[in-house]
Amino acid sequence: MRTQYPVYGRIDGPIVIIGFGSIGRGTLPLIERHFDFDAEKLCVVEPDPAASTFLAQRDITHVQEALTPQNYREVLGRLFPEGQGGFCVNLSVDTSSLDLMKFCRERGVLYIDTVVEPWAGFYFETTDNAQRTNYALRQKVRDEKAANPGGTTAVSCCGANPGMVSWFVKEALTTLARDTGRVTPAPANRADWATLMRDLGVKGVHIAERDTQARRRPRPRGTFVNTWSVEGFIAEGFQPAELGWGTHETWFPENGHSFDTGCQSGIWLARPGAITRVHTWCPTPGPQFGFLVTHNEAISISDYYTLGDVSAPEFRPTCHYAYHPCDDAVLSLHEMFGSGRQQSVHEILDESEIVEGIDELGVLLYGHERNALWYGSRLSNEETRQLAPYQNATGLQVTSAVLAGMVWALENPQAGIVETDEMDHARCLEVQRPYLGPVEAHYTDWTPLQDRWEHFEEDIDPSDPWLFRNVLAS
Amino acid sequence: MRTQYPVYGRIDGPIVIIGFGSIGRGTLPLIERHFDFDAEKLCVVEPDPAASTFLAQRDITHVQEALTPQNYREVLGRLFPEGQGGFCVNLSVDTSSLDLMKFCRERGVLYIDTVVEPWAGFYFETTDNAQRTNYALRQKVRDEKAANPGGTTAVSCCGANPGMVSWFVKEALTTLARDTGRVTPAPANRADWATLMRDLGVKGVHIAERDTQARRRPRPRGTFVNTWSVEGFIAEGFQPAELGWGTHETWFPENGHSFDTGCQSGIWLARPGAITRVHTWCPTPGPQFGFLVTHNEAISISDYYTLGDVSAPEFRPTCHYAYHPCDDAVLSLHEMFGSGRQQSVHEILDESEIVEGIDELGVLLYGHERNALWYGSRLSNEETRQLAPYQNATGLQVTSAVLAGMVWALENPQAGIVETDEMDHARCLEVQRPYLGPVEAHYTDWTPLQDRWEHFEEDIDPSDPWLFRNVLAS
Ligand SMILES: NC(=O)c1ccc[n+]([C@@H]2O[C@H](COP(=O)([O-])OP(=O)(O)OC[C@H]3O[C@@H](n4cnc5c(N)ncnc54)[C@H](O)[C@@H]3O)[C@@H](O)[C@H]2O)c1
Ligand SMILES: NC(=O)c1ccc[n+]([C@@H]2O[C@H](COP(=O)([O-])OP(=O)(O)OC[C@H]3O[C@@H](n4cnc5c(N)ncnc54)[C@H](O)[C@@H]3O)[C@@H](O)[C@H]2O)c1
Repeated sequence: MRTQYPVYGRIDGPIVIIGFGSIGRGTLPLIERHFDFDAEKLCVVEPDPAASTFLAQRDITHVQEALTPQNYREVLGRLFPEGQGGFCVNLSVDTSSLDLMKFCRERGVLYIDTVVEPWAGFYFETTDNAQRTNYALRQKVRDEKAANPGGTTAVSCCGANPGMVSWFVKEALTTLARDTGRVTPAPANRADWATLMRDLGVKGVHIAERDTQARRRPRPRGTFVNTWSVEGFIAEGFQPAELGWGTHETWFPENGHSFDTGCQSGIWLARPGAITRVHTWCPTPGPQFGFLVTHNEAISISDYYTLGDVSAPEFRPTCHYAYHPCDDAVLSLHEMFGSGRQQSVHEILDESEIVEGIDELGVLLYGHERNALWYGSRLSNEETRQLAPYQNATGLQVTSAVLAGMVWALENPQAGIVETDEMDHARCLEVQRPYLGPVEAHYTDWTPLQDRWEHFEEDIDPSDPWLFRNVLAS
Repeated sequence: MRTQYPVYGRIDGPIVIIGFGSIGRGTLPLIERHFDFDAEKLCVVEPDPAASTFLAQRDITHVQEALTPQNYREVLGRLFPEGQGGFCVNLSVDTSSLDLMKFCRERGVLYIDTVVEPWAGFYFETTDNAQRTNYALRQKVRDEKAANPGGTTAVSCCGANPGMVSWFVKEALTTLARDTGRVTPAPANRADWATLMRDLGVKGVHIAERDTQARRRPRPRGTFVNTWSVEGFIAEGFQPAELGWGTHETWFPENGHSFDTGCQSGIWLARPGAITRVHTWCPTPGPQFGFLVTHNEAISISDYYTLGDVSAPEFRPTCHYAYHPCDDAVLSLHEMFGSGRQQSVHEILDESEIVEGIDELGVLLYGHERNALWYGSRLSNEETRQLAPYQNATGLQVTSAVLAGMVWALENPQAGIVETDEMDHARCLEVQRPYLGPVEAHYTDWTPLQDRWEHFEEDIDPSDPWLFRNVLAS
């Protein structure tokens, strides 16, 4: 007996997947499972010839081209003929999310991506660090939304994180409200959610992730090994560390920089994120180091939950990524920063070679009366292999968020440019949850003041354990 | 046909091995191979009952006791009866090298160790960081030597490093003198060696090590995995970072501390060594991060090569360890510092489970006209298994240095307390070299100013690439 999968709707017009790397490959079977569409209208834009066989075997058109600022209007114009609608699923690196999104909205084509990606060259050729931030990248999309409100739906940054974790924040707030005995009406809008977070006493949020997926082969020297895009991780790892900057912070990092235009929710540090360590907590390891890698959600979540004037807010949570990638990636980073050179060989751990491990990805809401609450998915690679083909646990957390975002977009086709904070988290998680393995809430009494080096003084402020000053590792 | 091993001399009287961990086990077969002695006079002092079977199978007496400040005179007094001489081979943790050495010299017993180890409790119960340094530990041994010159030989710190690397420094100096066309008489004493180093323009020395040994099993969480004593590595890793401080340095670290008594060659930083990264270089990886773990040789080498008054020297090299332990140990450190807790399970990679890798351990002499010269041993685990039983490559580099030190002590039984810098490096390496695999000299044009992060300013001084300020990672 074959499993019956719910079909969430019909996609008329072309479906174009841009980029067929680890996430593109993993998204394909979910699209095939959960949407009704004309098979011959599905195609993949992917410059790498290695994708050809896989696609040919499945009778899927392979447009073997790299999108560029020069050709994207022509290539996409060809694939999305005027007046036919369709869906553009952007899962590539080195393409401008903003430009593709604008083009799709002009044509009435639904659009989704998992990151605000710039055109090739941006990450390493831009010299002004303020311009290299995710703050700057995101602000341009927000400015476009403000300049052209409404219209065809374009979902920005709808992967696992950014993406799903924004839905988890809302689930966690709801859980915390219930567990602390608050009887509140369900928040109906952004102001309600921000007020709830403030009233619950939440000071900030870590996107707290521990990836324990591993294979048996020792990591080869000169090879960057990760569980998702190596190119994407290196690029963001070399961006400045960034975080949403909360109103409870009493200290400002010496190498910190703020912004005076835009939403003003974030700051950046003059240091690569992937070599900047923070103290954080996940259920499996307990206390651990995470890397302060910049991510869109750090800015978007602290923006979404801001109350009052953006330049002098009444309330804003601190928010940042605290990422412990798989051990092979930890070693890859150590090698890369130690040699000052990017590895030339890139490997993404394949679901078939992974012998153990889970991707434990959640949000750690801290500073409230229950101290800290981690809420997230603890999906194993083993379970992933039962759930969907062509991906590891990390991949499925992303691709199932793409699926959920696509469903929401189909159901809300005229919502304009949206981020996941602005979507119906309950509906999205309803679609996504079957693919997330155990989704659990864990309270902890851990704080970043615990378990410090006994013998050496550190620059900490014991008056409030949850200050970023204490979270940032020495 | 059995391999014929040279027998270097006869040990009359008892041979007592204290500590039967990874190094004790590996030293045993070398003693059996290379010395003539009465088998029933060999015994092992080791508190761990796990050693019993191994020793019983070989008919070796197992004194199952832990030495303490209270019992060591009684236990060793029993094992080394007055007037019989003998050899005390101290390969334990948690015993005071100084106290054991003094006792042995009182009794006319030859003595060797591989580290200036303190009694149990010292490393974590001492609160004054200046007292927790290797500088302080070593200075007490130097003070004892000064107070009681000559007498029965006691070799201090004769492992791979400290130990063998001091012999490599002399080999490297000789190589560099030859390769730069200097025709100098062989240095005859300390002043000659220091003068040669100065005249060659050497500014400093990294003890530059890369251990690539690995097994197939992914490192289990909560387990500290290393290729030698986990207890020893954790203890030194939590000591302050330390280095010999050279006369070419123009800057002083903000968290640095110097000494105003003793040899004054070293400084310490108010930060654990095993979380402090430096830029260094080894032949296999090229540029890499090493950890600035404190080691006796950093102090002894910069002391030995000092010219002029110790408090205002004319010349002194910078010297420090730059250790890239095996990948599993890198991950263990990351976990330990990230959780703020020492792992409760300790594992030393066994020669039989290691599937690849070498211990590449050498000295990097830098700042001279050929820029930098690495000289060292590149011993693989595979070759180790052909050479001697019960140890991995790391172990054999240590145990063969113990063997060489024992030979030298037997040949120089009245040399008093000595460090490896003060021994005949040519004779010692003659004994040791068959166990070191490829011993090679490699020049490199790498400097710590190369391959820095392009996008972020760092606190560097381009006027001299080899300043410690540039070596210390941001
Ligand atoms: N939000 C999240 O949770 C999340 C998680 C993982 C990945 N991502 C993002 O998803 C994207 C894909 O990730 P992945 O792991 O599949 O990456 P990947 O590196 O495996 O694949 C990226 C693909 O894009 C293709 N590509 C490169 N240049 C292109 C161009 N000019 N035009 C079209 N295609 C091009 C590459 O050939 C490659 O196949 C990345 O941007 C990554 O940052 C987001
Ligand atoms: N110089 C070097 O290159 C070098 C290299 C490796 C190890 N070492 C040193 O050699 C020593 C041994 O290293 P290892 O890898 O064998 O360590 P290990 O931890 O494997 O073994 C140490 C042994 O000492 C024993 N011991 C503990 N307390 C004792 C006591 N009070 N009395 C007697 N024995 C006691 C332990 O039971 C253990 O078997 C350590 O001090 C280490 O720092 C030096």
